[in-house]
Formats: sequence, structure tokens, C-alpha cells
Amino acid sequence: MENVPQTALSLRSLVTEDGNLQLLLKESPVPEPGDDEVVVRIEATPINPSDQATLIAPADVSTGKTTGTGADTVYTAKVRPGLESRVKPRIGKPLAMGNEGAGIVVKAGSSKAAQALLGKTVAVMDGALYCQYRKVNVMQCMPLNEGTSARDGASCFVNPLTALGFVETMRSEGFKAIVHTAAASNLGQMLNRICLNDGIDLVNIVRKPEQVELLKSQGAKYVLNSNDENFSRDLTAAIEATGAYVAFDAIGGGDLGSRILTCMEKAALKDTELPGPYGSNTFKQLYVYGSLDLSPTVINRNFGFSWGVNAWLLTPFIQKVGPEKTQQLQKRVADELTTTFASHYSDEISLTDALKAEVVAEYSKQATGQKFLINPTL
Amino acid sequence: MENVPQTALSLRSLVTEDGNLQLLLKESPVPEPGDDEVVVRIEATPINPSDQATLIAPADVSTGKTTGTGADTVYTAKVRPGLESRVKPRIGKPLAMGNEGAGIVVKAGSSKAAQALLGKTVAVMDGALYCQYRKVNVMQCMPLNEGTSARDGASCFVNPLTALGFVETMRSEGFKAIVHTAAASNLGQMLNRICLNDGIDLVNIVRKPEQVELLKSQGAKYVLNSNDENFSRDLTAAIEATGAYVAFDAIGGGDLGSRILTCMEKAALKDTELPGPYGSNTFKQLYVYGSLDLSPTVINRNFGFSWGVNAWLLTPFIQKVGPEKTQQLQKRVADELTTTFASHYSDEISLTDALKAEVVAEYSKQATGQKFLINPTL
Repeated sequence: MENVPQTALSLRSLVTEDGNLQLLLKESPVPEPGDDEVVVRIEATPINPSDQATLIAPADVSTGKTTGTGADTVYTAKVRPGLESRVKPRIGKPLAMGNEGAGIVVKAGSSKAAQALLGKTVAVMDGALYCQYRKVNVMQCMPLNEGTSARDGASCFVNPLTALGFVETMRSEGFKAIVHTAAASNLGQMLNRICLNDGIDLVNIVRKPEQVELLKSQGAKYVLNSNDENFSRDLTAAIEATGAYVAFDAIGGGDLGSRILTCMEKAALKDTELPGPYGSNTFKQLYVYGSLDLSPTVINRNFGFSWGVNAWLLTPFIQKVGPEKTQQLQKRVADELTTTFASHYSDEISLTDALKAEVVAEYSKQATGQKFLINPTL
Repeated sequence: MENVPQTALSLRSLVTEDGNLQLLLKESPVPEPGDDEVVVRIEATPINPSDQATLIAPADVSTGKTTGTGADTVYTAKVRPGLESRVKPRIGKPLAMGNEGAGIVVKAGSSKAAQALLGKTVAVMDGALYCQYRKVNVMQCMPLNEGTSARDGASCFVNPLTALGFVETMRSEGFKAIVHTAAASNLGQMLNRICLNDGIDLVNIVRKPEQVELLKSQGAKYVLNSNDENFSRDLTAAIEATGAYVAFDAIGGGDLGSRILTCMEKAALKDTELPGPYGSNTFKQLYVYGSLDLSPTVINRNFGFSWGVNAWLLTPFIQKVGPEKTQQLQKRVADELTTTFASHYSDEISLTDALKAEVVAEYSKQATGQKFLINPTL
């Protein structure tokens, strides 16, 4: 087996008593695995919006400064005004993070399952993967198929399982097509490929003409720009054509979700001569799974009395469908990792790079089309 | 059997081509019942908020005028600006309404079930009970217990089944206590009596000090005024004490529902030292069942990622629980009609009275504590 060092670095996000957020590197011993555990040398771990929330979101990055070099590098920025009470529970606790990644198993416990992974490239789901070496349970590992690189396997869980989760949710709740917002994102492009493969109608909503072109070039049939004059009319027609009465919304704030529900109701009432005071019987569901717009969700309630607005999150979905279904979905991800579930990264950076003010400024505002990859071996 | 006339009157609400809403009386033959049908002489039928929606809500009652007398009485008011497209499907169609009421069965079809009702006082659920005689199926009738008057039985369905529906929904979804807004309403007082009888904790939210007193005088333990300075703190404490993670909201507009969800989350996180970015795992549910405030619902999403906001409506609830459960609930209503399910009316009016401008002006703004009863025999 290769040489594993005695100690290694992990990235931490710390809120200080004096109102700053710091990113720093912590050196600690590389742990020994228990019977059912392995130690993974992390080679690729992406910065997802779900990581950003804890990593950097509370900071005003315009005040960010980096001091020191190498393992002593420290990034410091002021906590954004108004968030003081929200970050209070974090003060003085250097939090580890990084929800998914991939690397090589360099140590393995005594169990058969652990030993079988030794030397293998695995994808890992965990909460602290922005580090050089990480001890995890074998159940958190998904062995990658022969020839798949850690970089290819870095984003095996969050986006792929979320996109598959949308389709599973649609099916299990009796819907037959999907409306998706911020549809040009990495996740949105993945969902488009899944729906094309599975023969599911997907109504893509984007905000820019070039995003319409991008998705159309990838085979999408329904792509609507919410800034277009005829957006509501066209969305109603697309819902009528597809029966897409469930929407997944990454934006959260503002009234786009409400407008989608209104178009759904119009489509549902298309053939109703005289609607009653409570609207159609067609159940309309909006799932909010992101907060690209942090402002309040505005629900106009002009779409009858048969609707739901819910938060959608990956972890409760996985708990709900159970381990067998999850493994089935994971197998599909592994098998289609470089096609359906391929991720693209705008930048590959080292752990130390992730603490540089100009880099933080970039990934803190990372929009849906842009994604940073940390490579802790650099 | 008593003398049944050849023809009788029914109240209609009509939107005209020239942008008016009219209330008028239509004379038509009293129908003959089919085998499984009965004809009921309606003696008491309330004006519920659910009736108002179709009856009068689209009218600007400040422009209301009444002409004619007796059966020729006509009320006319302008349709409120901005509602033109919404009422368009109604133009030229004199709609019947009246969702519940009670009276005497004066004609019965040949079936055993129909014949058994002849001469009985029954409560009826239907959509057109603002009339003197109404033909309905025996399944729509609930025979009242001996000695119960039509007036006592006029409101057997909408409020009682809605209040019981809240409790059933709470139970079937695994909640153990309820938050209720506009809690001093007829419905709210009924829900308070049910919860006291059944030993369920109810957190009542009202908007005036006298409503706090009213509910406390009726034995309510938790009554909070949403205009009080310490409302959020007290609501959080009440939710913590009771575990009330489901709320039923009659108001709909504004941010009260969102504030309730925020307090639920605070209560859920009470013992959590360091909440994650997605908040608590406690599922929080807001049901919107009314629109006392027609403005948009504003959802601040500062309560994690485990929540739902849904419309709640009686008809889908009844369809969901099925006929057996519904009959069981109806039996309880019949047995406790003058106690738990007693309704109070501010005014008893005739069909012709219901067309008088000064009366329309009153019942069109009927607040939650006030309820008009139409007696078509007057």
C-alpha cells in the first residue's frame, strides 16, 4: 500500500466572537479505520450550493482578506449584517464540510466489506470531505466502475440523486411530467438527459435566451424563458400538452412558483365551461428545493383549492424511499457516470486555493452553471 | 301530507353582459322526486363564507340597489374592477347556491329509504338550497334526532365537518395538537369545544383582546393575540408545550402562516445546540382553508426544509376519508348538535330580505363571528 502520512489537513469554516467568518486548514492525525471503516484519500470534491450554505454564505466576501501561506493560510471576512443571530450557534466551532467527493481507499478495516474496497476508487457521501484523508463507513462508499476517475466520480450523489429523486417523486405521487426552473443548471441538464432517456416530458424554465439555446441543443423539447412576454401563455400550453402538474423550483423567492401554479390551473380548467369557486380538482404541486432568490415566496392563491407547496430535500427523500431503492438509483449513476450523470467544473483548485480571497469571491457567487472542484492532492 | 304548491322560488346570482351582478328570485315548478329522491321544504339555510364566494363576493356592494317587491325583487351592483375576466364564464347564467340547510321532507320517492324520510326534519348538503323546495337524493340527507328543529340543523355540515376534519387530518398525519387562526369564529369556537371534549391541545390565534376573553371564557387554554408584542415568543412556547406542528389558517393572505411556521421551527430546535443548514427534521404543516385576507400568502422560508403549505377544503377531505368515516362523523354531529356543534346566527332573513341592498351590504362583509340564516318560509 502507498505511503499514508501521519497527519493531514482539513478545511474548516469558523465564525469568531468578533463577527468574522474564517476559512482555515486544520492539521490532525490521519485516523485508523474500525472494522467496517475505510480511510479515503480524497482527490476530488465539488463545492455545491448545499456546501456553500455553511462554508461561505454568511460572509460578506467583499471584505475578504487572505493571510499566511501553505497550511497557515487563513481567509477572513466580516459576517453579513443581519445574520449575527443566525450564526451565533456556530461561534468558536471550526466546522468541517464537503458533502460528496471521490478518492482512493488507502486503509481498510478488518471486515470483508472494508477489505474489498482497499485500493479501489470510491465515491463518498459525507459531511466533511474538504480534506486530504477521511475515515468513513463502508456504507458511505460507492465503488466506481473500472476506469472511472475520482474526478468523474466526485459528484455522484447530490446532483444525480436529486435529479433521479425528482423523477421518482413524480412517479410515486402519480404525476406524469415535470416543470423545472433554473433548468440550465448542471442539475437541470442532468434532469433533461434523464427525462429524454426515460421518455418523460420535461418543461424547462430558464431566464436567458442563451440558456434556451443550450437546452434545445441538448434535445430539450419544452424550454421557456420566464422573461419572455408570452411566458404564461406558452407555459400553460406546455403544461396542457404534457400534464406537468408537479414543479421543482430552485429559485424559491418571488412569485415564479405561484405563476407556475396559476398556469397549471389554467391548463387544468381548459375544458371547464363554468369553474366553481374552488377551482379545478387537479392537484398541483410545487416543490421548492433551492433558494437562488432569498426573498420570500409569494403565493397568489389564484389557482383554486387543490395545491401544495413543499420543501424538497435529498436526505429525507433517501430516508423515505429506503436503502434498496437508493442502491438501485446509485447503480444507475455509476453505470451512466460519464454520460447521463456527467458533471462539468469551471475550476479545479487546491485546499489552499480555496482560502484565497479572489477564489472565495468567485465560488461564493457561483451561479447554477458554474461549479468548483477541490482537489486536495494538489 | 301537507299542501305543496305547484311552483316555488329560488335565489339566483347572475352576472350580466353589462358588468353587473344581480340577485333575483326565479319561479319554477316544484319537482317530483325519483325513486331515491325526496323533496325538502327548506326552512333554514345559512350564508357561509363558502356561499358568499359565488353569491356576492364579485360585487361592489357600495353600488348596490334593490328594485321591485316580492318575487320581482332584484338586487343590482357593479362587478368589482379587476374581476371582469374571472366572472366572464358566469355571464348570462343565473347560478343557484346554498351549500347546506334543513327542512321537512314533503314528498318522497318510492324507495324504502326515501319513504322512511317522509315528514322527517332533515339536514341537507347540496349546492342550491337558497330556495323554498329542493329535490335531493336521500344520500344527501341526514335525519335530525327527535325534537331537533330545522334551525338547529341548518349548519350540520360545513362548519361541523370542517372542524372534525381538522382533528381527523391532525390524527391521520401523525400530529398531536393544532394551531388555529381566526379562532374566535363560529368554526373556531366549535373546534375549541371538540378539542376540549377529546383532550386535544389547541393553540388559538385571534386578533382582538375581546376574542381572547371570549375563548378563555369557553375553557380554551392557549389563546394568543397576533397583535401582541410578545406573540412570537408566546406562540413558540405554546407549540413547544403542546407539539402543535400543524396549523389551519382561515386568513390566507399576508405572513401570519409563515410566522407560525417560524415559531414551529424555533420550538422544534429548542434543544438543538448547532442546527444544520437545513433546519430541524420536524415536519411543519400549514393548511390554508380560507381567504379572509385576499392578498398573497408570503412565505419567508426561514424555518428549514421540512414543511408543507397546502390548501384544505372539505369536499376533498370527505372524498379521501370515504363514506363510512363520514357517516361516523355525521352521527357525532347529529348527537351533539345543540352542544358541541351549536351554531349562532346574527340575523334570520327571508329570501326577499336577502335581496335588499342594506341586508346584502351586511352579509357581504360578514366577519367570522357573524352569520346570517335564510328562512325561505318567511
